[in-house]
Amino acid sequence: MSAATPLVGLVMGSDSDWPVMRLAAEALAEFDVPFEADVVSAHRMPQEMIAYGENAAGRGLRVIIAGAGGAAHLPGMLAAVTPLPVIGVPVPLKYLDGMDSLLSIVQMPAGVPVATVAVGGARNAGLLAVRVLAAADAGLRDRMAAFQAALRDQAHAKGERLRAEAATLAAARD
Amino acid sequence: MSAATPLVGLVMGSDSDWPVMRLAAEALAEFDVPFEADVVSAHRMPQEMIAYGENAAGRGLRVIIAGAGGAAHLPGMLAAVTPLPVIGVPVPLKYLDGMDSLLSIVQMPAGVPVATVAVGGARNAGLLAVRVLAAADAGLRDRMAAFQAALRDQAHAKGERLRAEAATLAAARD
Amino acid sequence: MSAATPLVGLVMGSDSDWPVMRLAAEALAEFDVPFEADVVSAHRMPQEMIAYGENAAGRGLRVIIAGAGGAAHLPGMLAAVTPLPVIGVPVPLKYLDGMDSLLSIVQMPAGVPVATVAVGGARNAGLLAVRVLAAADAGLRDRMAAFQAALRDQAHAKGERLRAEAATLAAARD
Amino acid sequence: MSAATPLVGLVMGSDSDWPVMRLAAEALAEFDVPFEADVVSAHRMPQEMIAYGENAAGRGLRVIIAGAGGAAHLPGMLAAVTPLPVIGVPVPLKYLDGMDSLLSIVQMPAGVPVATVAVGGARNAGLLAVRVLAAADAGLRDRMAAFQAALRDQAHAKGERLRAEAATLAAARD
Amino acid sequence: MSAATPLVGLVMGSDSDWPVMRLAAEALAEFDVPFEADVVSAHRMPQEMIAYGENAAGRGLRVIIAGAGGAAHLPGMLAAVTPLPVIGVPVPLKYLDGMDSLLSIVQMPAGVPVATVAVGGARNAGLLAVRVLAAADAGLRDRMAAFQAALRDQAHAKGERLRAEAATLAAARD
Amino acid sequence: MSAATPLVGLVMGSDSDWPVMRLAAEALAEFDVPFEADVVSAHRMPQEMIAYGENAAGRGLRVIIAGAGGAAHLPGMLAAVTPLPVIGVPVPLKYLDGMDSLLSIVQMPAGVPVATVAVGGARNAGLLAVRVLAAADAGLRDRMAAFQAALRDQAHAKGERLRAEAATLAAARD
Amino acid sequence: MSAATPLVGLVMGSDSDWPVMRLAAEALAEFDVPFEADVVSAHRMPQEMIAYGENAAGRGLRVIIAGAGGAAHLPGMLAAVTPLPVIGVPVPLKYLDGMDSLLSIVQMPAGVPVATVAVGGARNAGLLAVRVLAAADAGLRDRMAAFQAALRDQAHAKGERLRAEAATLAAARD
Amino acid sequence: MSAATPLVGLVMGSDSDWPVMRLAAEALAEFDVPFEADVVSAHRMPQEMIAYGENAAGRGLRVIIAGAGGAAHLPGMLAAVTPLPVIGVPVPLKYLDGMDSLLSIVQMPAGVPVATVAVGGARNAGLLAVRVLAAADAGLRDRMAAFQAALRDQAHAKGERLRAEAATLAAARD
Repeated sequence: MSAATPLVGLVMGSDSDWPVMRLAAEALAEFDVPFEADVVSAHRMPQEMIAYGENAAGRGLRVIIAGAGGAAHLPGMLAAVTPLPVIGVPVPLKYLDGMDSLLSIVQMPAGVPVATVAVGGARNAGLLAVRVLAAADAGLRDRMAAFQAALRDQAHAKGERLRAEAATLAAARD
Repeated sequence: MSAATPLVGLVMGSDSDWPVMRLAAEALAEFDVPFEADVVSAHRMPQEMIAYGENAAGRGLRVIIAGAGGAAHLPGMLAAVTPLPVIGVPVPLKYLDGMDSLLSIVQMPAGVPVATVAVGGARNAGLLAVRVLAAADAGLRDRMAAFQAALRDQAHAKGERLRAEAATLAAARD
Repeated sequence: MSAATPLVGLVMGSDSDWPVMRLAAEALAEFDVPFEADVVSAHRMPQEMIAYGENAAGRGLRVIIAGAGGAAHLPGMLAAVTPLPVIGVPVPLKYLDGMDSLLSIVQMPAGVPVATVAVGGARNAGLLAVRVLAAADAGLRDRMAAFQAALRDQAHAKGERLRAEAATLAAARD
Repeated sequence: MSAATPLVGLVMGSDSDWPVMRLAAEALAEFDVPFEADVVSAHRMPQEMIAYGENAAGRGLRVIIAGAGGAAHLPGMLAAVTPLPVIGVPVPLKYLDGMDSLLSIVQMPAGVPVATVAVGGARNAGLLAVRVLAAADAGLRDRMAAFQAALRDQAHAKGERLRAEAATLAAARD
Repeated sequence: MSAATPLVGLVMGSDSDWPVMRLAAEALAEFDVPFEADVVSAHRMPQEMIAYGENAAGRGLRVIIAGAGGAAHLPGMLAAVTPLPVIGVPVPLKYLDGMDSLLSIVQMPAGVPVATVAVGGARNAGLLAVRVLAAADAGLRDRMAAFQAALRDQAHAKGERLRAEAATLAAARD
Repeated sequence: MSAATPLVGLVMGSDSDWPVMRLAAEALAEFDVPFEADVVSAHRMPQEMIAYGENAAGRGLRVIIAGAGGAAHLPGMLAAVTPLPVIGVPVPLKYLDGMDSLLSIVQMPAGVPVATVAVGGARNAGLLAVRVLAAADAGLRDRMAAFQAALRDQAHAKGERLRAEAATLAAARD
Repeated sequence: MSAATPLVGLVMGSDSDWPVMRLAAEALAEFDVPFEADVVSAHRMPQEMIAYGENAAGRGLRVIIAGAGGAAHLPGMLAAVTPLPVIGVPVPLKYLDGMDSLLSIVQMPAGVPVATVAVGGARNAGLLAVRVLAAADAGLRDRMAAFQAALRDQAHAKGERLRAEAATLAAARD
Repeated sequence: MSAATPLVGLVMGSDSDWPVMRLAAEALAEFDVPFEADVVSAHRMPQEMIAYGENAAGRGLRVIIAGAGGAAHLPGMLAAVTPLPVIGVPVPLKYLDGMDSLLSIVQMPAGVPVATVAVGGARNAGLLAVRVLAAADAGLRDRMAAFQAALRDQAHAKGERLRAEAATLAAARD
């Protein structure tokens, strides 16, 4: 994977977001999607942030994933300077449980969309990027379908253990 | 456009969502993206809803846009049965200003992402679908870039009028 | 109890919900109501979830209890495919204190009700299932009335200890 | 229907709640479930409210539906004095969009459940009462299943109109 | 103090509220106001709760302080059955940070007021009860004024320490 | 009433609060409690506001009712400069439905309580002031008890009309 | 005023914000502070927005006022590219009452402050800009003090009218 | 720095706010801005608080920073009695995550602005005070611009480490 041109740019405002955002990286890696990760801060390096967005498509990126917390401007600002789809991850901070991050990312004005996922939902951001790429890639779409089937099988296995545990609970009462 | 196979499926739980959701349709039409629109209710026709999602990719759809309000299950349920990217539009109902719709759509569990836009943000859902398609279509990407340039020009024109009005306000005081 | 046909189906989206949901199982066991427990995920095994709901009444179930967190679609989707009463338990996740789970479960559209209990209120879900069964079972109704009398007695006992402690606090000051 | 003993008691804190709560009455009437309706205020006539709850089961009621707004104590207080299932309807007041009503009704302590429906969701309260009765009445269960099938058919019809309108929108652009 | 007839009744739904509510008791004790404390649960012993409220004035109580959490019905129900002023303390539970408790207590309908204090604000409930009694007792009013002067002096002392610490911080930089 | 020394001071930050706050005045008038009303703004006339609070007890006032909206500082500031009980009325402004007003009034720090009523609950503020005065006035307490009995009778009358209307609804269906 | 170099730059994302934001302009005009007004959109003209911020101090501006709604990125982005103080005005949109705008503006990360005023509080933004300028201008500070005295006098006048009206209300009852 | 007349007054309602508020002091010290720190409580020492505000400008202060939690009245009350710019810091308390503090500070009425920063955002309050002073001080403005450049460089350095870590993650998968 390392040699390939990155298709997904995974950026965040600070390396303190990495523990949340690395779940996006892992999801991309599971699907063998080449990606890059970087710190791109809307507030601390605005010019470089603008440049990152403007150059993204030309460098071969097809999707951008941006994580940010609080007054989370990074996803929306990148969406303003690229025609690529931008996926926003609301990173929860110490207070407000990420509600500020969520509203700052999702409530974009008409004209400039950001594809927002759940608070702290970086893994889903990675999976959404895969789905976007898979929209034009039947092979990748098949892998996503297989992934979904595996989710089902795992849920089945969990159900088996739970049925047993619940039966024990009932038996203990008899 | 009418003869082309739809690339985007635009669905909603009830025709009462149409006044909000037609803005997505108009955005798609502006970019000449073939689409279909339908009522697909998670709660009133669950089997058909499942079938819609399962067949979507095979019928040639590349993106699904789903609008729903309140306990808005449609986008997430479709995302569970298709490998395509699903865009969710939180439709505001009479109470709670769409906060229920937003949380019901965006807070998806790991494994099944929904790309959520703003409360009532159907136009952005349409534009996001265009960006998803444009990720694999350089021509469409150019059109999106041109659209963004047009947004800038409109904002410039608005600024001109505002500068004049503000000057009048200042002059009136002199 | 183990041999009896289950009257209550207790399901949840993941076995990680079990520490919350087992309180429902315990309440049912206290009233000797036969139940089953299983993992049924709206998002990871949607077809099986639909089948579970469609077959529930025919298999002899009379009430379904469904716990879910975040974009909590399980209770509402089951309610869409069964005529049985469905009780929804909003399971709190790491962020937002279960407010997302609550709104996703309770704000169902007209036509498809879910009987929602408090955030994390699985014990009450079990007790509500007992009340539903007791609506047609005078004996069970008497047991519920006796249970309520016992709650009163426990509260009395707690009051006695508190009165003593408060008196000590006052005496210490004299 | 008038001569039958009421099975459902439909109560509210004030007749100003009736425009919301009559939707519950209509749902019950559609299923030919005999019901009574009354003003029973937890705050203005507490003793009568207690008496209403204590006598409900003995008078033949099988379900209570209680609507209330603001510090909505009626559903929970009735649940405290009856073993019957109590369904709570959060009535929205002039401010706060019913969020106060919802939390006051749904957040009941362990031991005393209230089956809560959506803000203003009186129709669903009526339908939930029907489901509770239908849990022990196969005939009523069949009628509920038929009702659900009718919901599906109505949604289909709405979809047909919407498909036509969307096609017009597309055609207008060609 | 112990021999005097209680003037304040301090009640709560469960002894688990005592760690919060004992701050009210301590405030009353500081002002030598005779009080009683008890568990009086609106949901677990509704008849006794009603009786407690109805008898309060006759027994010599002049103020009731009631603490409750979640669907916190106790303060409002007591206010419905006594002409005495009732002070409500929203006790925070495990989830929602007491917002449910606050709204359930403060949003009372016209006709039946509850004097609500801050989430977890039991000490202020005690002090408010003192102010209510002091409205008709000039001596107690003087003690409250002296208490307020002591608060001021304590704040002054804290300021002195803070000024020193801040000066150190500045000096360390020189 | 006009000649009597006012016992209740009814103040608000602006005369725009009067349409809400006059309900408090009317409640006081119903109980023949002498009161005064004035504009006392924490933010626009802070020194006069402080003076109003400091002089209130000496002038014979026994309770202060203060209404305010937004960053509603008036009730808390008055409570800081008087030993009298202060009742706060959260006045809803154009946005946020009074949630800001409520939190600004109720969340007072330990030491300085404000007796808070519902958003827009000025009538209850008046009734609470009556209860405070009645704590030391058996005659007024009896009038409050009579008032509560009248509330009950009105609720009964409303119930009668509602029972008739519900019967009509049922009859119409037969 | 017109000929003077603007000291305050008053910008907003769209001319639809002007009905709210013109109150800031009027406040500046009242204090004879030269200002300019313009449409500067973070999302529609990001490069121009960056340039506006970078050039602001050099052009002689001393304060920037920026109004924005929803995912309101304009104030924070300007603060990132200028050393001048930036005042943010949360403009309320159709849904959510400006809570999204408020959080998006105020919750800035450490390093890049925005001075945030109330939802829709454009007049205060203008007055805050005057205070900032007055921090280094004793004459302007005196005018602000005079303005505050005038607020006090207006409040006095309102109080007079209210006292009369309240007296009438009392008299009507006698 | 110690000998200089303070330009910034840093005050808070209690020394328990110091762990949050000292970040403001540190920011001021970094820019060599002379400041003072003190406990000034709106609720515990209202007269001294008023005096502090009234004397601030005359003593040479140019900016006031005020931190407060809950019903956070300090910033707004100071703004009412000084023409200086007042910066408010919402200090989060044990419950509600500072949302009460934020609304109590930011929602000031027209006429009396408070420059509000993020929940717990004391460092930004210090930096905002520097910007206010820098509006009239080109040298300080240059230092702020240098500070912003340093933020950018730090973000770059963090990006370098993150790029390396992400590459390792990718390599581990190969």
